[in-house]
Amino acid sequence: MRFYDIIEKKRDGGELTESEIRWFVDEYTSGRAPDYQASALLMAIYLRGMTDAETAVLTDAMCRSGDTLDLSRFGALAVDKHSTGGVGDKTTLIVAPLAAALGLKVAKMSGRGLGHTGGTVDKLESIPGYRTALPADEFMAQVERIGVAVIGQSGNLVPADKKLYALRDVTATVSSIPLIASSIMSKKLAAGAGSIVLDVKVGSGAFMHTPQEAEKLARTMVEIGARCSRKVSALLTNMDLPLGRAVGNALEVREAVEMLRGETNSDAALREICVALAGQMAALALGIDHTEATNRARRALESGAALAKFREWISAQGGDCGFIDRPETLCPASRRETVTAPRAGWVHSVDAAGIGKAAMLLGAGRERKEDGIDFSAGVLLCVKNGERVEAGAPLCELLSSTVEDFSGAAETAAAAFVISDEPAPEQRLIYGIVQA
Amino acid sequence: MRFYDIIEKKRDGGELTESEIRWFVDEYTSGRAPDYQASALLMAIYLRGMTDAETAVLTDAMCRSGDTLDLSRFGALAVDKHSTGGVGDKTTLIVAPLAAALGLKVAKMSGRGLGHTGGTVDKLESIPGYRTALPADEFMAQVERIGVAVIGQSGNLVPADKKLYALRDVTATVSSIPLIASSIMSKKLAAGAGSIVLDVKVGSGAFMHTPQEAEKLARTMVEIGARCSRKVSALLTNMDLPLGRAVGNALEVREAVEMLRGETNSDAALREICVALAGQMAALALGIDHTEATNRARRALESGAALAKFREWISAQGGDCGFIDRPETLCPASRRETVTAPRAGWVHSVDAAGIGKAAMLLGAGRERKEDGIDFSAGVLLCVKNGERVEAGAPLCELLSSTVEDFSGAAETAAAAFVISDEPAPEQRLIYGIVQA
Repeated sequence: MRFYDIIEKKRDGGELTESEIRWFVDEYTSGRAPDYQASALLMAIYLRGMTDAETAVLTDAMCRSGDTLDLSRFGALAVDKHSTGGVGDKTTLIVAPLAAALGLKVAKMSGRGLGHTGGTVDKLESIPGYRTALPADEFMAQVERIGVAVIGQSGNLVPADKKLYALRDVTATVSSIPLIASSIMSKKLAAGAGSIVLDVKVGSGAFMHTPQEAEKLARTMVEIGARCSRKVSALLTNMDLPLGRAVGNALEVREAVEMLRGETNSDAALREICVALAGQMAALALGIDHTEATNRARRALESGAALAKFREWISAQGGDCGFIDRPETLCPASRRETVTAPRAGWVHSVDAAGIGKAAMLLGAGRERKEDGIDFSAGVLLCVKNGERVEAGAPLCELLSSTVEDFSGAAETAAAAFVISDEPAPEQRLIYGIVQA
Repeated sequence: MRFYDIIEKKRDGGELTESEIRWFVDEYTSGRAPDYQASALLMAIYLRGMTDAETAVLTDAMCRSGDTLDLSRFGALAVDKHSTGGVGDKTTLIVAPLAAALGLKVAKMSGRGLGHTGGTVDKLESIPGYRTALPADEFMAQVERIGVAVIGQSGNLVPADKKLYALRDVTATVSSIPLIASSIMSKKLAAGAGSIVLDVKVGSGAFMHTPQEAEKLARTMVEIGARCSRKVSALLTNMDLPLGRAVGNALEVREAVEMLRGETNSDAALREICVALAGQMAALALGIDHTEATNRARRALESGAALAKFREWISAQGGDCGFIDRPETLCPASRRETVTAPRAGWVHSVDAAGIGKAAMLLGAGRERKEDGIDFSAGVLLCVKNGERVEAGAPLCELLSSTVEDFSGAAETAAAAFVISDEPAPEQRLIYGIVQA
């Protein structure tokens, strides 16, 4: 087999065979094929596309390029959840214990954040004592015992994706549906769960800007799951504005705890999405009706069962649980500043990307992989779309313990708010569900 | 400027600016930009195309990447000719002295052959004593004195093309009109002639398989010329069957001499194409009417003026001119075998690629750059399209001094002939002329 022939075939719009795709992934990951042939093929794939069959084989080949996790001991109960990334997305912190409270097994490896979307592992590290690395047997035993464990990615999982993603990143071949789908799904397949619920974000703060694009990506990923013998469904959810009220690591952990505690002022949109995600997970893993599964999820959140499971989980991984009773004690910021409304009116939109950028400027995120993080830093929204605001009233609060000059962050945050004379039309929260 | 942004722009079908194209050629040729970004851009160009303006800037930037020849002392008389490559194409051997006989100045650098299309320099090296390398001042003085000099490529001409072509060759990005056109024309621009006639070959033995493709390539190259202040025209000529009767280095030199000597059995198609090419060159360089220019070319061939110029030229470059009076003495082959017709009928087609392949198998060409050549080897066609043949009559003769087993070559050559019961329709020789 020759790499040249594979490039030529895809260049001319042909469908690659299973053996061609497996050969390419193997040659490239092993270092036998050069970057310049891989990048030509990636550009041809970008412009010519891939069929569902090609995409599924690519995903499977990437998945098998390194270690994989064996969760077969948990049978159908092993469930995973993945978000395509958004601003203020702390759903894993709520959904993982909620799913465990429903009897599911959540053995989850999460990533770190880069750019304006935070990683779950970064958020968990704001909890004093929390261990994001566990020995394999301890990880499995914890899942067995309490139903949930969340650690950082470890081992040599999907090296093909690491190498291909690094190349895509410098050759303008990232934003291709089959390449995004295979990248995400290869990691989900390698992580071993039989049931996978995807939260595909749509909007200004997400990778997919329209529901149509997001649905196409979701359908591609659900189809990969079906072809690789996993149960997969996807929710398409709004990311035009940040999810919840808090953006920043410890701030998001606090908001998650407040939600689990059932505090009355907790964000309705965040609650609905968490209940919908956990409901989907239960429907897939338990094979029950979706409405019934969602009702169970809602009850487990309202009854405090999910909060109890959260406490068990954090405690099992060595975290100091003091913040669960007094969330405000988790990583308080040393400096705080309020951004106020320049005029009265209705909040028409709160740009998620802009708020994410402001949080970055306050020290909440990384520009580069090796950068450190200020866990206390971030943005707390005081108002969101559809709410009324008076001139001089607070729009949001900025927090940081490391940044002294808030002016850049304040300007960026202020620019994210659009205030108009008319009430904004209500935004859809969930655009739809894609199932096999 | 960032390479990433240039790739992204072309990927999305955008038109690159002059500064973007010049920056890319400069960064890549200098080794500052990596192959993997260049190959992604080449694939994007392959699939998205380039406008005439982009292609002309790319060509000019490539031309300026290394040394260029200054032929300004010859003014409008400096003329060049380029063939896109075909089987049995010995036109330069005839056209160069013919143009010189018309008063034009042919200061020509020619290439070596690779694969089944032979290079003019290889053909000239079959002449004992012929020097394919001349000091620059001697080269110029010879052009000044007798109007023609043909040497191998020397100096650091168009390094950008060498580097880009090597990358295209392994990334399936060769067969793109703007990339082919810029590769050819950058070398023609660097070679310095003010007037350039292109012979774009069409058919089974050529790179372009249809007159439509060939015309597109020709128009692109003529347009580049116009934008770069050169007079350029292109002939689209038939390469479904070999040009002339001889394929192989010394065999082609012999056929060229027989043509220049006006021998009665010389090939009419070869003669017509040579006269047309020299006519085009004269029309451009002298600024005269095309019919008048073609008539002058025909008279110079028939009068023996071109033959006299040929003798002057070969002699000036140190060649032994004995073969000019006795062509059969040039590199006689030690072994010879005749391929005969399996049945009676009409020769419907003689596949140029197949005959080229047979000549290769006999030792006439190179598989790799470093291979040697058997100058005596090749194929002599006994019949061509439209001729009647009886069962057992000769179709062609195979010649070699280095290969012992002719069976593979004989099988390949025999398979190139299609014999049918009906006379074949006459083939067009020249499909058209493309002018600015």
